Amino acid sequence: MNYYFSSDFKLGILGGGQLGKMLLYDTRKFDIQTLVLDPDEEAPSRFGCNTFQKGSLLDFDTVYQFGKKVNLLTLEIEHVNLEALEKLEEEGLAIYPSPKTLRLIQNKGRQKDFYIENNIPTSKHQRFVDLNDLKNTLDKNLLNFPFVWKAAQGGYDGNGVKIVRSTMDLLELPEVECLAEDLVPFKNELAVIVARSPKGEIKTYPVVEMEFHPEANQVEYTLCPARISPEVAWKAREVALKVSEAMNHVGLLAVEMFQTEKDEIIVNEVAPRPHNSGHYSIEASYTSQFEQHLRAILDLPLGNTNSKVAGIMVNLVGEEGYSGQVVYENIDKIMAIDGVTPHIYGKRETRPFRKMGHVTIVNEDMNEARRIAEEVKNSLRVISVAP
Amino acid sequence: MNYYFSSDFKLGILGGGQLGKMLLYDTRKFDIQTLVLDPDEEAPSRFGCNTFQKGSLLDFDTVYQFGKKVNLLTLEIEHVNLEALEKLEEEGLAIYPSPKTLRLIQNKGRQKDFYIENNIPTSKHQRFVDLNDLKNTLDKNLLNFPFVWKAAQGGYDGNGVKIVRSTMDLLELPEVECLAEDLVPFKNELAVIVARSPKGEIKTYPVVEMEFHPEANQVEYTLCPARISPEVAWKAREVALKVSEAMNHVGLLAVEMFQTEKDEIIVNEVAPRPHNSGHYSIEASYTSQFEQHLRAILDLPLGNTNSKVAGIMVNLVGEEGYSGQVVYENIDKIMAIDGVTPHIYGKRETRPFRKMGHVTIVNEDMNEARRIAEEVKNSLRVISVAP
Repeated sequence: MNYYFSSDFKLGILGGGQLGKMLLYDTRKFDIQTLVLDPDEEAPSRFGCNTFQKGSLLDFDTVYQFGKKVNLLTLEIEHVNLEALEKLEEEGLAIYPSPKTLRLIQNKGRQKDFYIENNIPTSKHQRFVDLNDLKNTLDKNLLNFPFVWKAAQGGYDGNGVKIVRSTMDLLELPEVECLAEDLVPFKNELAVIVARSPKGEIKTYPVVEMEFHPEANQVEYTLCPARISPEVAWKAREVALKVSEAMNHVGLLAVEMFQTEKDEIIVNEVAPRPHNSGHYSIEASYTSQFEQHLRAILDLPLGNTNSKVAGIMVNLVGEEGYSGQVVYENIDKIMAIDGVTPHIYGKRETRPFRKMGHVTIVNEDMNEARRIAEEVKNSLRVISVAP
Repeated sequence: MNYYFSSDFKLGILGGGQLGKMLLYDTRKFDIQTLVLDPDEEAPSRFGCNTFQKGSLLDFDTVYQFGKKVNLLTLEIEHVNLEALEKLEEEGLAIYPSPKTLRLIQNKGRQKDFYIENNIPTSKHQRFVDLNDLKNTLDKNLLNFPFVWKAAQGGYDGNGVKIVRSTMDLLELPEVECLAEDLVPFKNELAVIVARSPKGEIKTYPVVEMEFHPEANQVEYTLCPARISPEVAWKAREVALKVSEAMNHVGLLAVEMFQTEKDEIIVNEVAPRPHNSGHYSIEASYTSQFEQHLRAILDLPLGNTNSKVAGIMVNLVGEEGYSGQVVYENIDKIMAIDGVTPHIYGKRETRPFRKMGHVTIVNEDMNEARRIAEEVKNSLRVISVAP
């Protein structure tokens, strides 16, 4: 148990993006040796690890050989070579999240089936081997407009999801394996991060709320705690726990949910790792989600998931119309406000809508935090040296 | 002002110990490029910087050439080649703390003179070119027992300081330049960290209190806020501000003080950088001392210095009787307690009294934090694999 700190123990991390980068603050804090694998030699995690290796996350041999160098393997991105992980696990390597969980989650259709099989509340769905299969089902009147179309694999950040209201909308969809979900009107999009260790200790973070821009239908703010009733919050934590237990998951599991107009909680999807919805925890929580992920996968005691103060997170994405060497316009202005912390992921080049960083706003008073968050959102612009 | 983030700007850091290591968490957070110079190729800061250079901090050429590679220079240890810094500053490089401040602070006799010249309350002192000079002064009855002997240069962590009560005590002292200070009975040892930017913005952190072991006369706990009256706290912050302003200091200045039995505040000494007494701030404050140091030297707005919760810091030093590959005995036990965060500096080998890390305890209630701190102190032991 005290074997990880300043020892020969080596933690492997698949993926070197911003989630990995933030995880490395805590491996450094605990002086745990890390190896990072990422295809991009400019990946944000190239500093702060002990060894950075450039290589494909999808190539069997690369992932397998990487796994052979470490004592425990985790990841910050799900899109990795599962066959290599399965072989490594067979050969005795501890891998969290487990290849089994990853296989279940990687296919959104399979993931939805799992919720149904385990009596976890979720919207109704139908699976289709391809777009043609979906069209045939529509023709037979076994599927009706409107519905939510999702690509079964590879979608992220709103990619691979579309609300389909008519035959016209079908024209834009790719020919891939997919699913159709009932369009459920909801009041709130919520998320709960569950931490679970191999010995079975479980803790949930408070419920966070995604606040959407009234017109653009994009998440603008992630707020913790969510501005919901204690009953709804309790229900959301119970549902998240149920998912984590059903998956026998180890590490962090971010469970994204909807609060329906009838105050029911239904699961949308999950991510088996630190998650955008938990970034607020670095400044607001007793234990950040990244430290908690480490504690969980190393089977150390889990930390306190309560918040010291209210927290709001604003994503920093590249402004439309700007590409090239990034400039964070007005970053000095927002840093002058109490409780405002920018996180810059370390991507030199901005592009429209590229995730470049986030800003956390903490305050004893959520209303004041919310006011400041709007000020931050309206001031800070991610642009380029030349437009 | 937005020129530092993901840009070509390079910050140089002299020294690669634990203070530098913790500073790097925040340069990574802001994606500021860093170069670190340290003589030890196993220095804790060798990871997390962009470039690590092994080299002497005391060699003119090494420090000068290092300075030529960066846009701004700071340090985490004062014992560096000042002539090189002076030449670099002459040639236009921004260096914080300034070589002038460093020259003043490096000699404790000169530092004491400065306090007197600037009407900053401090104990009376006399300076001696060597031990013989001191002995002659004693012989002439111009100095009386007891007094506090200090080496003028190079002391740290209680090295180079001794209470001298009789001629016998003189036998153990080295033949170096020194000073003798009046032995002032005090109630409390306090410290205040002041942050100041080039444009003159100033903020002070709350007063912290060093609690000593009743018998061993060693600091056991650093508590924030100090358990003192608001009047004494106000006085301590005022004195600290006066020191910072008199020195025209840029960056962090940790001002160590005594609260005398008459509730006077007198300055003991200062450190022009992040300081052991500010480690609690990583978990307890809105802005950690390390982020604040960066904000200050980069002339960015200073962050909120208030605390979210009460904080206590316990140093982790090597247990007597153990040397070699370190083991943190019971670290898993203390991590099971709410609000307890160990920081492991990353030194593989423990030695008696070597600073190996620290533990922060945060809680809404200071009394509860103090109870837990004692539990931590009594459980966690820094030992070696074999005694």
